[in-house]
Amino acid sequence: MPRALVIHGPNLNMLGRREPHLYGSRTLEEVNALIEKWALENGWEVATVQCNAEGEILAAIQKAPGMQDLIIINPAAFTHYSLAVADGLRSAGVPAIEVHITNIFAREESRRISVTAPACVGMISGFGVGSYILALEAGAQLLSVENADIL
Amino acid sequence: MPRALVIHGPNLNMLGRREPHLYGSRTLEEVNALIEKWALENGWEVATVQCNAEGEILAAIQKAPGMQDLIIINPAAFTHYSLAVADGLRSAGVPAIEVHITNIFAREESRRISVTAPACVGMISGFGVGSYILALEAGAQLLSVENADIL
Amino acid sequence: MPRALVIHGPNLNMLGRREPHLYGSRTLEEVNALIEKWALENGWEVATVQCNAEGEILAAIQKAPGMQDLIIINPAAFTHYSLAVADGLRSAGVPAIEVHITNIFAREESRRISVTAPACVGMISGFGVGSYILALEAGAQLLSVENADIL
Amino acid sequence: MPRALVIHGPNLNMLGRREPHLYGSRTLEEVNALIEKWALENGWEVATVQCNAEGEILAAIQKAPGMQDLIIINPAAFTHYSLAVADGLRSAGVPAIEVHITNIFAREESRRISVTAPACVGMISGFGVGSYILALEAGAQLLSVENADIL
Amino acid sequence: MPRALVIHGPNLNMLGRREPHLYGSRTLEEVNALIEKWALENGWEVATVQCNAEGEILAAIQKAPGMQDLIIINPAAFTHYSLAVADGLRSAGVPAIEVHITNIFAREESRRISVTAPACVGMISGFGVGSYILALEAGAQLLSVENADIL
Amino acid sequence: MPRALVIHGPNLNMLGRREPHLYGSRTLEEVNALIEKWALENGWEVATVQCNAEGEILAAIQKAPGMQDLIIINPAAFTHYSLAVADGLRSAGVPAIEVHITNIFAREESRRISVTAPACVGMISGFGVGSYILALEAGAQLLSVENADIL
Amino acid sequence: MPRALVIHGPNLNMLGRREPHLYGSRTLEEVNALIEKWALENGWEVATVQCNAEGEILAAIQKAPGMQDLIIINPAAFTHYSLAVADGLRSAGVPAIEVHITNIFAREESRRISVTAPACVGMISGFGVGSYILALEAGAQLLSVENADIL
Amino acid sequence: MPRALVIHGPNLNMLGRREPHLYGSRTLEEVNALIEKWALENGWEVATVQCNAEGEILAAIQKAPGMQDLIIINPAAFTHYSLAVADGLRSAGVPAIEVHITNIFAREESRRISVTAPACVGMISGFGVGSYILALEAGAQLLSVENADIL
Amino acid sequence: MPRALVIHGPNLNMLGRREPHLYGSRTLEEVNALIEKWALENGWEVATVQCNAEGEILAAIQKAPGMQDLIIINPAAFTHYSLAVADGLRSAGVPAIEVHITNIFAREESRRISVTAPACVGMISGFGVGSYILALEAGAQLLSVENADIL
Amino acid sequence: MPRALVIHGPNLNMLGRREPHLYGSRTLEEVNALIEKWALENGWEVATVQCNAEGEILAAIQKAPGMQDLIIINPAAFTHYSLAVADGLRSAGVPAIEVHITNIFAREESRRISVTAPACVGMISGFGVGSYILALEAGAQLLSVENADIL
Amino acid sequence: MPRALVIHGPNLNMLGRREPHLYGSRTLEEVNALIEKWALENGWEVATVQCNAEGEILAAIQKAPGMQDLIIINPAAFTHYSLAVADGLRSAGVPAIEVHITNIFAREESRRISVTAPACVGMISGFGVGSYILALEAGAQLLSVENADIL
Amino acid sequence: MPRALVIHGPNLNMLGRREPHLYGSRTLEEVNALIEKWALENGWEVATVQCNAEGEILAAIQKAPGMQDLIIINPAAFTHYSLAVADGLRSAGVPAIEVHITNIFAREESRRISVTAPACVGMISGFGVGSYILALEAGAQLLSVENADIL
Repeated sequence: MPRALVIHGPNLNMLGRREPHLYGSRTLEEVNALIEKWALENGWEVATVQCNAEGEILAAIQKAPGMQDLIIINPAAFTHYSLAVADGLRSAGVPAIEVHITNIFAREESRRISVTAPACVGMISGFGVGSYILALEAGAQLLSVENADIL
Repeated sequence: MPRALVIHGPNLNMLGRREPHLYGSRTLEEVNALIEKWALENGWEVATVQCNAEGEILAAIQKAPGMQDLIIINPAAFTHYSLAVADGLRSAGVPAIEVHITNIFAREESRRISVTAPACVGMISGFGVGSYILALEAGAQLLSVENADIL
Repeated sequence: MPRALVIHGPNLNMLGRREPHLYGSRTLEEVNALIEKWALENGWEVATVQCNAEGEILAAIQKAPGMQDLIIINPAAFTHYSLAVADGLRSAGVPAIEVHITNIFAREESRRISVTAPACVGMISGFGVGSYILALEAGAQLLSVENADIL
Repeated sequence: MPRALVIHGPNLNMLGRREPHLYGSRTLEEVNALIEKWALENGWEVATVQCNAEGEILAAIQKAPGMQDLIIINPAAFTHYSLAVADGLRSAGVPAIEVHITNIFAREESRRISVTAPACVGMISGFGVGSYILALEAGAQLLSVENADIL
Repeated sequence: MPRALVIHGPNLNMLGRREPHLYGSRTLEEVNALIEKWALENGWEVATVQCNAEGEILAAIQKAPGMQDLIIINPAAFTHYSLAVADGLRSAGVPAIEVHITNIFAREESRRISVTAPACVGMISGFGVGSYILALEAGAQLLSVENADIL
Repeated sequence: MPRALVIHGPNLNMLGRREPHLYGSRTLEEVNALIEKWALENGWEVATVQCNAEGEILAAIQKAPGMQDLIIINPAAFTHYSLAVADGLRSAGVPAIEVHITNIFAREESRRISVTAPACVGMISGFGVGSYILALEAGAQLLSVENADIL
Repeated sequence: MPRALVIHGPNLNMLGRREPHLYGSRTLEEVNALIEKWALENGWEVATVQCNAEGEILAAIQKAPGMQDLIIINPAAFTHYSLAVADGLRSAGVPAIEVHITNIFAREESRRISVTAPACVGMISGFGVGSYILALEAGAQLLSVENADIL
Repeated sequence: MPRALVIHGPNLNMLGRREPHLYGSRTLEEVNALIEKWALENGWEVATVQCNAEGEILAAIQKAPGMQDLIIINPAAFTHYSLAVADGLRSAGVPAIEVHITNIFAREESRRISVTAPACVGMISGFGVGSYILALEAGAQLLSVENADIL
Repeated sequence: MPRALVIHGPNLNMLGRREPHLYGSRTLEEVNALIEKWALENGWEVATVQCNAEGEILAAIQKAPGMQDLIIINPAAFTHYSLAVADGLRSAGVPAIEVHITNIFAREESRRISVTAPACVGMISGFGVGSYILALEAGAQLLSVENADIL
Repeated sequence: MPRALVIHGPNLNMLGRREPHLYGSRTLEEVNALIEKWALENGWEVATVQCNAEGEILAAIQKAPGMQDLIIINPAAFTHYSLAVADGLRSAGVPAIEVHITNIFAREESRRISVTAPACVGMISGFGVGSYILALEAGAQLLSVENADIL
Repeated sequence: MPRALVIHGPNLNMLGRREPHLYGSRTLEEVNALIEKWALENGWEVATVQCNAEGEILAAIQKAPGMQDLIIINPAAFTHYSLAVADGLRSAGVPAIEVHITNIFAREESRRISVTAPACVGMISGFGVGSYILALEAGAQLLSVENADIL
Repeated sequence: MPRALVIHGPNLNMLGRREPHLYGSRTLEEVNALIEKWALENGWEVATVQCNAEGEILAAIQKAPGMQDLIIINPAAFTHYSLAVADGLRSAGVPAIEVHITNIFAREESRRISVTAPACVGMISGFGVGSYILALEAGAQLLSVENADIL
């Protein structure tokens, strides 16, 4: 059974309460419930974690090798400056997918650059909470033997 | 039955023959076959077009309103400078999803900027040919009534 | 009878349908009708053309020498990157006037630079559809013997 | 009877004497005479003022509300750095049109940026002294009821 | 009784011991005593916290909604790069005031930019330990009904 | 009795009439009345002056030494480019406090830089008309013997 | 018999008529005649094409594999922004030589950068129409067995 | 008898009182006395003026043609941003020499750029009050028939 | 007996497992063993700590004054953006030496800048695990009385 | 008999021994032999010189006027910063051609700029040792009467 | 008797022959004769040297301490990049004056920056060969006891 | 017996006499004596050379292959612009270590960039004259068989 770790970056525990015109009105618990529902339906074991600190994200990433087949990460504000998270993803060696709720390219200048994406397989940005589900689908493709030749 | 138009930008007709270490070994015909297979399985009507010229892409985009429910576009090299394609997408008013086969954030400096993404709902980058399938899934989410509250 | 060619750049065929808060609600046909009305009243022969492709704009510009006394061009998105259109205008040797419906200086950063304006006599920006009429007036001044000393 | 104020920025009192290959050989008095001629023919009341100091320009702008229906301003060198003039125009609330004798886009780098234009309705640049007349025409369009739908 | 939370950022626990020519010779305890004295005199309930880690600051900010009427924050080094703190302040929805002991504009280049200030009501910089007292006064004004029309 | 000079920069005489969503609805007279009220209550002698011209501001600053114990200055648009005002403040040798009604860090790019602040003791930005009162309080702290050790 | 395709970019059909002080007075037909003369003398089969549109250039490049041993391209204005032409050259896999009539390094800033040259074997710039002949010679060297060790 | 006008820019009336470690301890009156002494000894008629306002400097410059053979200007802070002063000097057509008391190249970044120097014959920077005397000498050389071949 | 603290920054606990072509194949434990061996041989007391979080690094640094004679720090990814670590080092007042396993100047652009090095005595970069030993030697030199005149 | 001087810049004496994957395996002696062979076959007198120092290159260039009809120069590393070599070429007045063994546009950022090329007739880059032969051909064209109208 | 060394930088031995519209028609010998004439008249011992190489300039500078009271240097192209010359001047400790024949501020962008001027007392630029004479005068002022208070 | 060449760059012959607050008071001879003492104690053969000219440094580097096992270079001012020295080091193929007496990261902006370091194994900066000794130690590590696995 494939295993994935979903890492929610800083302030994402405020989801639903925080600027709903940007991030929607679902809480992080509801997001995690959607993720778990997908996991159940697709035969995956998915763990979720939310961290406000770089150090906690690194700890989570560093425990992944051998434990997880996939990391899905929404680095939130860290996307734009945390070389430490990027280094952590590179060193873990577990394939990672970067996820954003909003379309970061349609936001202010400082949010259009990602220092973490080069350490990931790819990025999915702009589909609201659905970005997580798409990342899970992308992970399923990545790990699927039969789709191996698509990627 | 939802309808989508998939636009392949310049040089994508060379797919499979062109730098396979970057873009994989599937031809554009094979990519389109995968897209059509998804369409069939998911009850969508999907048309595909490949254009080497900005003007043709604009023509394709401008015919979409009223004809298509979704545009999936891989602007290829135009991603990085064609404000005309961005304007076209904005004026069409049909939701669009930007797609890249490679992870553009892990490539050379000049390919990390997208001038077209701000005119789209979101971007999916780095999942090989699978990026197109994920974009179709994202489109299905976008248009789905029951998922409306996720996005 | 003085002759002018009005070139409408990419996506301007969407005028009236496209973001009316930015570009107004008149269609391109209505704009051309206003231009023709001015031509009739002022004894000019004015042709209009809309092109979504750089190549078509170059073709239109290159046919102008000997055929037209004035080019009025709204390069739309090409304003900001098409050195090819700028070169075309320079090589044609027909005086050209750059026109913008919106005030490009009051828009986003990337729209405040014009690479085509240095190849024109001047620029008129921000007067809605009226920018075209003012450009025709400016052209009439340019070609007028009696006003020669004003310019 | 519509009223306009034409503000000539720093050094424009040297017109005609100053670098005629750039600015032509007409003096400011002659320019004002052309403006007055237009006013007479078109039923406008047009006042003109020349100021070498930012503070005087601000004073002129600040007296305009309620007194003038239109400001036409050639900010000359202030175009490129006077945020104070830009703020003054914004606070006055009287529609303003920026005018340049030369095509500022075809000049040296530091003259291609306008900090005042974003505070105006639009800009007319490059038509010699005729730029003023075109600005008056543009103002007439702006204030005209019957042309309201063009702009 | 209005409630405020004062957050001291990284290294501020070294106050008094650290570069006194820059930051003065009072310790953080003495600063907090001054803050408490003000609170007592003005009928406020003020809590103080010092955090060396971004994550702790976010935790403190996220607990504020419903608990605090005002946040006063000296983000210290985080001022210049922590988009995470800025996002946290935005999501908390509690009015915040940024405070600096030194005049950050008179220091080295990299300290003249604040990424956190745009998420605050305002900034007070350069008045030594007095900056905190001024921020409390500013908060009192902000929350005061009778001064509501000043702000 | 301590003496202060409050200098209102360009366009601030338009206060109340000018973009009230940005600057509030109080007029400069009302602001000055608040300042005078504070002066009366706190035993200060406070003069106010509004200048639209750099030269007038310099004149006011240069008369301050020996006459004033404190300068409070809202340089408005000059904040962002007037090295002359900065030099004037430096040469006067009277402690100065920079004040802004709006939070300049939350506005457009060109308003986030202050060339005058490095010549001041500190800056207070974003508290509406209250910024002036806070600056007076800051000045009182600065000049107060008993608070000397806070700053 | 070695085969080469010479691609003339946008506006080069205006050669001879266009700014002769920059580009000389020979027409494109005369240039092509010189190229053909060289081909005849050197036993090559050389085709020439002029395209004003990116799309046409891509079409010409994409037909080259298997048909041509060498591409000589003067991308004209596209040199400076067309990543699409650069991608096309990379995907074709036919060795390409970039050619410029003028010395692009001695022209205005925006013409000193080439985005297409990195996709070519090399560049020859500044020898007038002779640049094409030198590129043919360079191609002959490139394809020559006996010179293989020079390159 | 050759005539020169020496223009002292903003804040130079504070000379001697202002930052003596930078600008020395002589007052402007003393500087002017030195200038007059030189004039007397060398048979020149030299007028001096100090202006804190751009507008006054322009007025002084504009009166110079026909009245003065030489302008010596220390634009002080205006050196770095006043395109208006640069334009004024260009339009006056009287040869001008830029003078600085300090070595502007050895000061902070923002003082190393001169926008006014390109409008002058040359610049003399760093020789204290002596810079003025050297500029007078330079002017004497410039106007001298016998030295004409040196320059 | 001189005492030193060696701080290993984020992700260095992955040493040996992480990109061995970049960082070598020794684990952090082996590195620490080498450090301890040196300490033993040279009569030093050396403690080592690895921290993934900025806050932990600050805590370690802040405990050093009075406890340590030297800090050796490999800030890893924090090198490039953590002003907080730089401030911490400055405030601790214990001499610090920056260490890098790789030659950061030979890596990607974003790794060539160090914001922490200006807060250190010096930097040693590129000697693999040996960089730590060299830093210890450098520290021994720094603290040695007899070598005091070399440094 | 036409005469040319070929100048090999710094480190080119290491040719053949130095990074052969970049610069090929021929030594400078072999390159010079090829050049001499061409000279013999084409009736030219060609001298070659290799200089590691700017000063020697200047000496070589300065002796050229009257002695040489053509300079061929591979400035190697000096290409990117030696304004002195550029000035030398300009002052010599002998037509010069810049040559590079590698395609400098396909190398690292700092090697894509040439400060010397603007002082040359043109540049040939990327054809290995063949670049020198092409430059000789280009020189022959330049000096040839019968080809005068091509260039 | 005061002693000065005049250093002429690279290519200045070409003076008179090199671009006379920029640098005048006097040869270096004639310039040196003028310098010697001034020395004779003013009781100075002045040596002159011309160097095309940085190393020679450093040698000349390094011999100056104890031998010369003043260095006058025209670093020519080295002005814009030779930190080595700047360091040499700083280490020599002999007061130096930078001299330019042309007005470097009125030339191309890359010539407006001086890296050597911050190591000099001041700069004199734009007075043709007269710049040297003015520098000698400036040096006489610098060394004069009676003028000590001017500088 | 391992052999090393120590290259001292421009102006280092002034050591001890030059800005002792920056570079210490030891002369180059004393530094070389320290180096020789180390060599003697460690069984190395170390030659030293000081060069003020790029060309001499290249000559020294180019003689090293086969003669030296290690190069230690303090490129001084050349660190920041001499691509020629960097190329020389790369072509020599002898491992090199860059050394700086001062901490270049704590100095002015222009001294924080090294163009030569990417051509070296590593850099040691900031330990005064001790930097050379550390570099020798680093070289001994590099060449030592038993330490091979540390690096």
